[in-house]
Amino acid sequence: MQASIFEKNILNKKHVVIIGAGFGGLQAVKKLSKEKCLNVTLIDKKNHHLFQPLLYQVATAVLSPADIAIPTRSLMHRKKNVTILMDEVTSIDIKNKIIVLEDKEISYDYLILAAGARTGYFGKTDYMKYTYGLKNLQDALRIRNKILTSFEEAENHPENAEKLLKFIIIGGGPTGVELAGSIAELSNHIIREEFRNIDTSKADIKLIEASSDLLATFNRELSVYTKLRLEKRNVRVILNTRVIKIEPNKVFVKGIEGENEFEASLIIWTAGVEAVPLTIDTGLPVGRNNRLKVNRYCSFDNHPEIFAIGDIAEFSEGGKILPGVSAVAMQEGRYAARAIIDEIKGREKKPFIYFDKGNMATIGRKDAVAELGGFKLTGFMGWLMWLFVHLFYQVGFKNKISILITWIWSYITFGAAARVIQEPLTEKDLKI
Amino acid sequence: MQASIFEKNILNKKHVVIIGAGFGGLQAVKKLSKEKCLNVTLIDKKNHHLFQPLLYQVATAVLSPADIAIPTRSLMHRKKNVTILMDEVTSIDIKNKIIVLEDKEISYDYLILAAGARTGYFGKTDYMKYTYGLKNLQDALRIRNKILTSFEEAENHPENAEKLLKFIIIGGGPTGVELAGSIAELSNHIIREEFRNIDTSKADIKLIEASSDLLATFNRELSVYTKLRLEKRNVRVILNTRVIKIEPNKVFVKGIEGENEFEASLIIWTAGVEAVPLTIDTGLPVGRNNRLKVNRYCSFDNHPEIFAIGDIAEFSEGGKILPGVSAVAMQEGRYAARAIIDEIKGREKKPFIYFDKGNMATIGRKDAVAELGGFKLTGFMGWLMWLFVHLFYQVGFKNKISILITWIWSYITFGAAARVIQEPLTEKDLKI
Repeated sequence: MQASIFEKNILNKKHVVIIGAGFGGLQAVKKLSKEKCLNVTLIDKKNHHLFQPLLYQVATAVLSPADIAIPTRSLMHRKKNVTILMDEVTSIDIKNKIIVLEDKEISYDYLILAAGARTGYFGKTDYMKYTYGLKNLQDALRIRNKILTSFEEAENHPENAEKLLKFIIIGGGPTGVELAGSIAELSNHIIREEFRNIDTSKADIKLIEASSDLLATFNRELSVYTKLRLEKRNVRVILNTRVIKIEPNKVFVKGIEGENEFEASLIIWTAGVEAVPLTIDTGLPVGRNNRLKVNRYCSFDNHPEIFAIGDIAEFSEGGKILPGVSAVAMQEGRYAARAIIDEIKGREKKPFIYFDKGNMATIGRKDAVAELGGFKLTGFMGWLMWLFVHLFYQVGFKNKISILITWIWSYITFGAAARVIQEPLTEKDLKI
Repeated sequence: MQASIFEKNILNKKHVVIIGAGFGGLQAVKKLSKEKCLNVTLIDKKNHHLFQPLLYQVATAVLSPADIAIPTRSLMHRKKNVTILMDEVTSIDIKNKIIVLEDKEISYDYLILAAGARTGYFGKTDYMKYTYGLKNLQDALRIRNKILTSFEEAENHPENAEKLLKFIIIGGGPTGVELAGSIAELSNHIIREEFRNIDTSKADIKLIEASSDLLATFNRELSVYTKLRLEKRNVRVILNTRVIKIEPNKVFVKGIEGENEFEASLIIWTAGVEAVPLTIDTGLPVGRNNRLKVNRYCSFDNHPEIFAIGDIAEFSEGGKILPGVSAVAMQEGRYAARAIIDEIKGREKKPFIYFDKGNMATIGRKDAVAELGGFKLTGFMGWLMWLFVHLFYQVGFKNKISILITWIWSYITFGAAARVIQEPLTEKDLKI
């Protein structure tokens, strides 16, 4: 590796390092890889690009990890000027333009920070201990195991069924809504016929949101619609209610008449995210939730060679911070790449402008809400739109087909194709 | 559950308990479920039926767990007289006809033992510590992680590539051959284009077999053919060589000129299986590798109400023990079910006769060996036959399609669809 970098330097090609193979990072790499005057290194601690918008379907046993996780290498194998490293960045020396990996260093001319976000607990570490987040495949499989095992346990001990089937989801954003909806789908339809000693549709699913609306960033009409449809699916939607304490299998809340504590067999936390800590001690300006405050060029005034994009960055547009969604990351990724190329080619750079394509979220089987530009879609039409958009953005032809078939199949059969309780792998299994 | 069993008793239906949802157990349940005069309980510690013949493709990142693991419940949801329990059998009281589970007991009138086999190390526990077996999804994902991570590590540290890419497979049966072949496929073709700092085809793959032939149970011609084709794929096939000691990343052997020790970054052990220990202290007659010696009725002279089928049983036919393959298990499963029904209906029972349908194993892309009845197939024809048979036997329509697509896709693109290094799940993740 050192060798090849050295080589790059004597050929004096500019070296661009991108940290993170998410939506933003991939867009940047794709654009940069076309410039033969550049060497590009993409670093990610995972070997795959994850299509996060469908993570909840892995958690609810509809899709398999491989359906939404594409080996990053397979996307870049034809880009000869792109090197991919599966490695963890331990620190960044921005003064000397050096990335420190676990056991070597890499120098850069340009750096794109695209390492994304992780579940955020507002510093409440016990929340982390007693709840499940949903940001990566491990989280998703953990939730899947937990849900499926709960139903199995209940079948073995119907006398405890009520206690075993109490699922609480905290956070009424898209992830929370989609999780609640598809857990309801699972218990009301998919597995109901298969149990003899319990009625799975009796599962108690609660969705707790601190604000007055689900999908707060959506048009109010859609928020109201979503609430009604979830309730129709036996999800108890609890709004205007703050979580004030979490204990093992217990959630304490404030806001509802007469209730201040809920029992739970599974607590899923989707109420917060924060940028990965990676960047905290770089000296770059940090905003809310550890996100890096970038200027209108997705960069930094005193470090124009560094860009931050996607969930790790805080980009304000007219006082409003851009949301942590894939569309923002992808547009920022393409922008950062263009900015670098422009600078090298001596073109003057223009500030980044976000083009809002809209929002969407599924509620359940053939039911979703979507707002695109002016108009809104709900129900089956919303669901078709959602399906189309997600298939369209899913990377890899094979994944598209296999996901489409899986969806059609589970649509016809009311089945979830990936109901595998996977035996745990131990840390050791990832070591050489 | 207790309740429902009690109910079964007052209705005085006979209660058949089957332990193990493998090939044998499933066949038995299907047949028994048609008899309304029976109540059937199927117990397995996993929630899924595993299509073991394709496990090596999960290990080599071609297929996903869900492609070969079907939720047992989903296969039985229409059979109202079948109850499925995901639970572990701790002991069996054959005197009182009681199955002891982790925290309850179940009584039976008839018992079918179909719990299968696990990797066997001939009592060498250190072999277990330093090698990977391949009997369940956990094993497969562990091997997958290990192989993929080795290549990633090598890309980061090309100077150590040689050391990092030494794979040794011990045992030249179908599993060993298929693993060696598809690891070669992976390194020679699938991922080769994607690495910049190493040549993955330089990976050192050794297949060690104690006897004089690979696929010893096959026709000799096919064994010889298999050896040649594996060697053509850069697999070093080492015959007539016994493993005498295993240390971390080291295999000591006896039999080859001048070599008595091999380095390895990954050691896969496919050289032995043994029946699950479950039955040892039941007092039933135990044969080689803990397998239960059954009579010609797949049963026991002094316990005709107990049947043992598949890998857990040792059935001798003219002094020859039937092999531990799915065909044997499935035929024994159907037989045991029929025997129970015959007895209840007062028909006299006939001894079990095995109908040998033949053998097959893949060597690599469009190359396999198959012997069916009289005739033999090799190369592309063998591969087509293999593909057809395995798709045909794969349970679940959706799995068939998704596997077929995955195969066709990876066949066209030389790609492996499931190259996901999965983050480890911890023991905790399976607990309620």
